[in-house]
Amino acid sequence: MVNLRNADLVYSGKTKDVYKLENGNYILKFKDDVTGEDGVFDPGANKVGLTIEGAGKSGLKLSTYFFELFNKKGIPTHFISSDIDSNTMTVLPAQLFGKGVEVIVRYRAVGSFYKRYALYVEEGAKIGPYVEFTLKDDLRDDPLITEDALLILNIMNKEELSKVKAMAIEIAEIVKEELSKKGIELYDIKFEFGRITIENHIGLIDEVSGGNMRAYKGDKYIDPLTLEKIMLSK
Amino acid sequence: MVNLRNADLVYSGKTKDVYKLENGNYILKFKDDVTGEDGVFDPGANKVGLTIEGAGKSGLKLSTYFFELFNKKGIPTHFISSDIDSNTMTVLPAQLFGKGVEVIVRYRAVGSFYKRYALYVEEGAKIGPYVEFTLKDDLRDDPLITEDALLILNIMNKEELSKVKAMAIEIAEIVKEELSKKGIELYDIKFEFGRITIENHIGLIDEVSGGNMRAYKGDKYIDPLTLEKIMLSK
Repeated sequence: MVNLRNADLVYSGKTKDVYKLENGNYILKFKDDVTGEDGVFDPGANKVGLTIEGAGKSGLKLSTYFFELFNKKGIPTHFISSDIDSNTMTVLPAQLFGKGVEVIVRYRAVGSFYKRYALYVEEGAKIGPYVEFTLKDDLRDDPLITEDALLILNIMNKEELSKVKAMAIEIAEIVKEELSKKGIELYDIKFEFGRITIENHIGLIDEVSGGNMRAYKGDKYIDPLTLEKIMLSK
Repeated sequence: MVNLRNADLVYSGKTKDVYKLENGNYILKFKDDVTGEDGVFDPGANKVGLTIEGAGKSGLKLSTYFFELFNKKGIPTHFISSDIDSNTMTVLPAQLFGKGVEVIVRYRAVGSFYKRYALYVEEGAKIGPYVEFTLKDDLRDDPLITEDALLILNIMNKEELSKVKAMAIEIAEIVKEELSKKGIELYDIKFEFGRITIENHIGLIDEVSGGNMRAYKGDKYIDPLTLEKIMLSK
């Protein structure tokens, strides 16, 4: 059982609190708050819209499943271990790109992509895998950023950008494949990467759960808790 | 003198009307309407904000100056000739990319770039030449689009994209150099390109005037009419 008494709360995020351990590692405590608007869950939103009992534990369980799978496949991540009872995940220290960049892999034109480009695409059309980047910036509604702007603003260098883009597609393809085994289609998924400082290389950070993706069964959207139950059922 | 009686009005735009000639060429009639908000001129705006007497003729004069310069330098454009008295420019037919794409070359972090990325850049910081693309879409406020999205939405192909990007920088550098001869600094400039159908290659279309750029003398913004006067004075 993880004991948070010896850990310092260093950051309180929208859906997770972050504690620093004496050995340099961190603990992510998953909360029951989820992103959305007006009480409706929306993985594309960037503020907390509602609290769903069990959402934290559910997100942790599914994230743990995926991180263990990625590690088994040799994909670098910040994951060390999880303690489901205390809703915590222990992770390696990681340095963000800039103040945080979200990497979105899209397979269907939904969400903000459709809102921006409705003049050129039907809602739900297959488009991927297509990668785009947004800045984590609540004040400015997580603005879209081009690859060239990531470079000129020194948020990433060219090598890191190619690496992140390739890893995002590789990981999204694994998630897509896992979902498809349960008859579920991945429409889009949002990742965060960092420089894993101990090993000094790029790895997947944050979480990988229903809160970061849009998953559908036929034309029915599968909410995060249901997704976790389906994915983790034998 | 151009006679518009034998020409069909095919499109009425925010700042120009477009007429088709019997020989397949087009006439652009420059209007005195300029883009802005609440009566204040803003080259980054996408609706007509005010009418300035003489703005059309002034924009035509400066555009003519630049198009003649580009043609002399071997850069393909749609320009054939201008008739200043009638506020018209005769141009070759051109096919837009998609429903129109704006190509912005930035040298300083101002306008929508600064609004989006203020977390990472000081207003007015040197950043360029940096190229970005927006879609002409009034309903959606001319959204920013990534290079990958231009490709997957079939708005341009890869070859056209590289060509347009390289041409935009080449042309912006010429304009920047011309302005600097008069002690004026180019902060950013917006172009439109098309497939010039007769010659079947990519060329600069639309106009090149103060309405499409932000120009400064020291820290003083130079409005379009003043810019034309300074640039065309001996």
